[in-house]
Amino acid sequence: MITISAMKWAPPFAAGSVRDYRARWILNEVGWPYRVHLVDAPELAGETYAEQQPFGQVPYMEEDGRPTLFETGAIVIDVATRADKLIPADDAERSSVLCWVIAALNSLEPALMNVAEVEFFIDDKQQREARRPSVVAFATKRLGQLDAALGERTWLVGDTFTIADLMVASVLRLADMQKMIKQLPRLVAYRERCLARPAYRQAVADQRATIAEHQQSDMRYGETEQ
Amino acid sequence: MITISAMKWAPPFAAGSVRDYRARWILNEVGWPYRVHLVDAPELAGETYAEQQPFGQVPYMEEDGRPTLFETGAIVIDVATRADKLIPADDAERSSVLCWVIAALNSLEPALMNVAEVEFFIDDKQQREARRPSVVAFATKRLGQLDAALGERTWLVGDTFTIADLMVASVLRLADMQKMIKQLPRLVAYRERCLARPAYRQAVADQRATIAEHQQSDMRYGETEQ
Repeated sequence: MITISAMKWAPPFAAGSVRDYRARWILNEVGWPYRVHLVDAPELAGETYAEQQPFGQVPYMEEDGRPTLFETGAIVIDVATRADKLIPADDAERSSVLCWVIAALNSLEPALMNVAEVEFFIDDKQQREARRPSVVAFATKRLGQLDAALGERTWLVGDTFTIADLMVASVLRLADMQKMIKQLPRLVAYRERCLARPAYRQAVADQRATIAEHQQSDMRYGETEQ
Repeated sequence: MITISAMKWAPPFAAGSVRDYRARWILNEVGWPYRVHLVDAPELAGETYAEQQPFGQVPYMEEDGRPTLFETGAIVIDVATRADKLIPADDAERSSVLCWVIAALNSLEPALMNVAEVEFFIDDKQQREARRPSVVAFATKRLGQLDAALGERTWLVGDTFTIADLMVASVLRLADMQKMIKQLPRLVAYRERCLARPAYRQAVADQRATIAEHQQSDMRYGETEQ
């Protein structure tokens, strides 16, 4: 049985957005059951947790007889590859899919995270206002480049939804800030297509349910099956 | 024949550090010859180049009959997988290697790039000084977590140098700023082990040679074989 780690609790604005939804999403897509190991902030910061996830974040994914994986990109690639779903059989197309998974995580997400930092995590107003124009301009440029690369196609690689789309759409969830994606209706429609997947909706609903439950009560703690 | 794109020219401080060295490094490791398509800033910004590399950067890697790859992480994974070198045959170990490749690109590099931005790309002194403490603290934390995860091992996964080490060491090249890595002698030694690879040294030397040549003369332009 696979176990992923997830937050026991998160502030309301983050419910549904903690990164374990990506692991839940791919596991739902391939139809593999999983357990959830719920962690709180002190556990995340501890040495025991670091043995599974060196950067003290959620999620990790563990399974008997396999090494623990601690990056959502790696979890998504691992599950898709083993299940032989959402990843092409052809090795050249497979490399294209991996290329977009990595583009999501290295060329798109850091640009969008820098906007998120300005919007949510820089307390000093003057510093925030000074930084905003450059990070919004850079992220907007990246989104425009993605939009151009997608063009009129339905999916990024080939004719079906793949983990390239899963990961890029995950990252595009950050693109509403400063109405950045709003200027790119084609990209908005692409994101909607991806996020309409039942496996995604279930992933987010399950994460929200867990967090809501623990906002009510701190009594249950540990592993729950989903 | 494989072709990678590389900068025709770069400012002296960047010579040897433009990301095409990563593509050169893995190609040297597996012993595959390649051509270099040299590009300048106007070409990078153009629509023709965007068809190969949507984000207008170097490198891409192209080869007859295969899709062009435009992320160094994807290039490194593709070449290692096809050559069956620097990546374990066992699928579980392989997932661990991919996990570290992605960790380098998503958990480490963005943190270090935010420090680089402060050191080299924010012109306003007040803004720079205001931002430095938080980005240096975060990157230092990430380096400490990497150091703890590596522990006393020689390589990140298994007993041999893999593309996990190649990519993590590439990213650690950014860790000298603010003496961040200096506090972690074990990590310094690990980086030295990785960067002692002849394939790496040749990659950097070749990139420097190209750039130096074009600082002398703008006459040659196009494809050169290396």
